[in-house]
Amino acid sequence: MTIQFITTNAGKFAEVSEKLAAASVKLVHLDRGYPEIQTDRLEKVLKYAATGLDDEVKGDYLIDDSGLFIEALGGFPGVYSAYVQRRLGNAGILKLMAGETYRAATFQTVFLLRRGDEHEVFHGDCPGSITESERGRNGFGYDPIFQPQGETRTFGEMSLQEKNAISHRARAVDVLLTHLSATKEL
Amino acid sequence: MTIQFITTNAGKFAEVSEKLAAASVKLVHLDRGYPEIQTDRLEKVLKYAATGLDDEVKGDYLIDDSGLFIEALGGFPGVYSAYVQRRLGNAGILKLMAGETYRAATFQTVFLLRRGDEHEVFHGDCPGSITESERGRNGFGYDPIFQPQGETRTFGEMSLQEKNAISHRARAVDVLLTHLSATKEL
Repeated sequence: MTIQFITTNAGKFAEVSEKLAAASVKLVHLDRGYPEIQTDRLEKVLKYAATGLDDEVKGDYLIDDSGLFIEALGGFPGVYSAYVQRRLGNAGILKLMAGETYRAATFQTVFLLRRGDEHEVFHGDCPGSITESERGRNGFGYDPIFQPQGETRTFGEMSLQEKNAISHRARAVDVLLTHLSATKEL
Repeated sequence: MTIQFITTNAGKFAEVSEKLAAASVKLVHLDRGYPEIQTDRLEKVLKYAATGLDDEVKGDYLIDDSGLFIEALGGFPGVYSAYVQRRLGNAGILKLMAGETYRAATFQTVFLLRRGDEHEVFHGDCPGSITESERGRNGFGYDPIFQPQGETRTFGEMSLQEKNAISHRARAVDVLLTHLSATKEL
């Protein structure tokens, strides 16, 4: 089975395609963007994008979106995580969380797969908390201020391998993989 | 000349239609939303929206978008001002600006007018600064923490009439009005 993964992020493509190869799924990189709407849920971003991509892309495709949802901030930065990271950085998030004792947060990834005429959606979550300060220099974005549940280190203090064993994206890929393996049409 | 103003905000419709009546422009309320994309500029939100609306709406129409751009925060919250106001409120902005001495900010409004096959864009800015604390209970959103240049009071301390004399939206409407008066086709 061949699926086009639509993303401008070559690193992400490499990570996901390696995992899906295990289910005999060949991922092809379609290096292009698509309009992302302003909304409160990742799934809505993908469903809107798919309505446009369905007309423009022939064959089956996969798209994804991720975000960090901080409960004390009503889910901020959520769908806008990439923009907020560029503008405010981790220092901005720590300022907003100063004095806040309730620090629960969840990293979320959603995949949307178009196969034939169907849209299927797969979720991966990684619950955790926002630390009091930045710790570690690995990973990217919010990794140094996010400590997964049950861990004593942040994503920024883990190796890529350690992070990939428990990350939201890894979990979403696992769900996708299980689904593809169960419904394989080779 | 009749133009449809596409907005879900009845108060905004009333304000703008009253002003445009002075140029013999009859504004009709088209109460519906449209997809707004994630981007860094208001103008891009409107231009993308217009590509969809052009197919769906017959006749001439007007759409608008506004935002508060804080320079020390790289333009944040900008295009996402409404979302950020709901999630973080003015308290969140004041937290992010704590200890920051460079407090310049600009309220911006952009209108996009579709007339015939043309898209025309009109800008209105109101430069000012972010106050150290909330002042006043008038207006809405960021009004209590925004002090226009040359004023000693925030928008939140002004009457609606005072605010409307200098606001970004009022300025954008003036530019639109001048343009429509100059190109009138009655």
